Amino acid sequence: MFRRVVIVGPGLMGGSLGLALRARRLALHVVGVARRSETLQTALQVGAVDEGTHDLAQAVRESDLLVIATPVSAILPVLLEAVPHLSAECLVTDMGSVKSPVVRRAEEVLPEWVRFVGGHPMCGSEEAGPAAARNDLYDGAVWAVTPTDRTRTEDTERLCGLINAVGAVPLVLSPEEHDAAVAASSHLPHVAACALALAVGRSAGLNQAIPVLCAGGFRDTTRVASGSAEVWRDILLANAEGVLQQLDAFSRSVDDLRTAIEAGDAERLTELLSEAARAREECLRLRNSG
Amino acid sequence: MFRRVVIVGPGLMGGSLGLALRARRLALHVVGVARRSETLQTALQVGAVDEGTHDLAQAVRESDLLVIATPVSAILPVLLEAVPHLSAECLVTDMGSVKSPVVRRAEEVLPEWVRFVGGHPMCGSEEAGPAAARNDLYDGAVWAVTPTDRTRTEDTERLCGLINAVGAVPLVLSPEEHDAAVAASSHLPHVAACALALAVGRSAGLNQAIPVLCAGGFRDTTRVASGSAEVWRDILLANAEGVLQQLDAFSRSVDDLRTAIEAGDAERLTELLSEAARAREECLRLRNSG
Repeated sequence: MFRRVVIVGPGLMGGSLGLALRARRLALHVVGVARRSETLQTALQVGAVDEGTHDLAQAVRESDLLVIATPVSAILPVLLEAVPHLSAECLVTDMGSVKSPVVRRAEEVLPEWVRFVGGHPMCGSEEAGPAAARNDLYDGAVWAVTPTDRTRTEDTERLCGLINAVGAVPLVLSPEEHDAAVAASSHLPHVAACALALAVGRSAGLNQAIPVLCAGGFRDTTRVASGSAEVWRDILLANAEGVLQQLDAFSRSVDDLRTAIEAGDAERLTELLSEAARAREECLRLRNSG
Repeated sequence: MFRRVVIVGPGLMGGSLGLALRARRLALHVVGVARRSETLQTALQVGAVDEGTHDLAQAVRESDLLVIATPVSAILPVLLEAVPHLSAECLVTDMGSVKSPVVRRAEEVLPEWVRFVGGHPMCGSEEAGPAAARNDLYDGAVWAVTPTDRTRTEDTERLCGLINAVGAVPLVLSPEEHDAAVAASSHLPHVAACALALAVGRSAGLNQAIPVLCAGGFRDTTRVASGSAEVWRDILLANAEGVLQQLDAFSRSVDDLRTAIEAGDAERLTELLSEAARAREECLRLRNSG
């Protein structure tokens, strides 16, 4: 499918793509590009790449697929650094969790001939780095693809073909639709989990029994709060408008529950808790059928 | 360790205790008591009990351990129904998630000779019923034991002995200390997860891409919201004061994060997200060493 694939940032997401491409023989040669030698060494050891280098310019020459799997704030700088060395046939994509700021700005600054299509695989975990990479990370995952009016249809189709080939399911939508949706489906859960970890942690400073009495509920509800602060800072600030809107909706739900508890309104509380359980099941059902 | 054990409500928690008692040969005979025949049949099938019955009075005669593993609102009615048939040697405990309303009321209404010691194992899941029971559910779990001034030391020690024997770790504290701590460690995560499922579900009604773009973060952060609405309504109303206090602390954390996002304050946001990650790791570390 590809001769020479370059993955910038062969960590959990990029490294897992390298593993999947190599396991499924979709690429003849996979090159990992990273600043840290340790990242490259681990990526080589786990078999995520055939070759590791610090030299982006050299790596992208002759490549027919460039995947930028860095944190959101590094995507455009990497793109701009790579462009002078890209071939006109090279498909370029990214894995950023926020699309509109990246894709719209890329349209402004990139030459028209660059075949860039934004992407965002909906998987990953609080783990990071190539040591956490898995060749089945993308199995069954939804992978958002965010073309614009300027994107060539053949490039969008080529990216969708790659996504299907690694076992994932492409979902094509505009960068703005993507950002509005992930503000609710992904960024709000992250802020809620962090707020919960903060609140419980601060209370635990006053009452030593609290951490000892933490069980699976606390562990799972806060799991994503262990993710990288820098990565999530970038995401939340890049999608601030959508996140703030979802935080308003969230505060309304918290207030609904609070009011029912304060009033001792058993009927209303049962209603809300049942609605919550149904909403969760419905979201997971639609995701799996989506 | 026990001759005849009676477990009222042999579901996930009660059934798992039955499995553990039988697997470790800690009881000669385990009797399950439930209203629904289906529960008893399943409890028998999975090996959680040796015998199932609807007849509480008959079951508790000659028993030396009575475990009430019903939802919180049913604990006292079951206790009062059992008392006339209990032997003076029988150790009585419960598994309710809220302790002060149960234990203090039990003190008021039970004859002094009844050997009741409140308990609450910190494990379980959003699953329910004897089909979900596992003989290793209590392995390594913290199990709160909440004696009062009136509780005999030998009874507390006997309950702690049982807890150790099934592989769990007893934590002795007052019913009030317990309730204040679980308001933060367990009840707040539940309300936050439900509020999140409600908010995302309501947004998903307006934007069909939201459920499709839900990933592992949403799934885990809302996992507990799939728990029983009736069970959790009872818990939240029984511990309303502590829960409301924790909800205030939670709203303050949400506001802290919101303010940093709205201001575009990257430094403050990184600080808060790092504090959240550290708080989570610290709670889990103290739990495991507690």
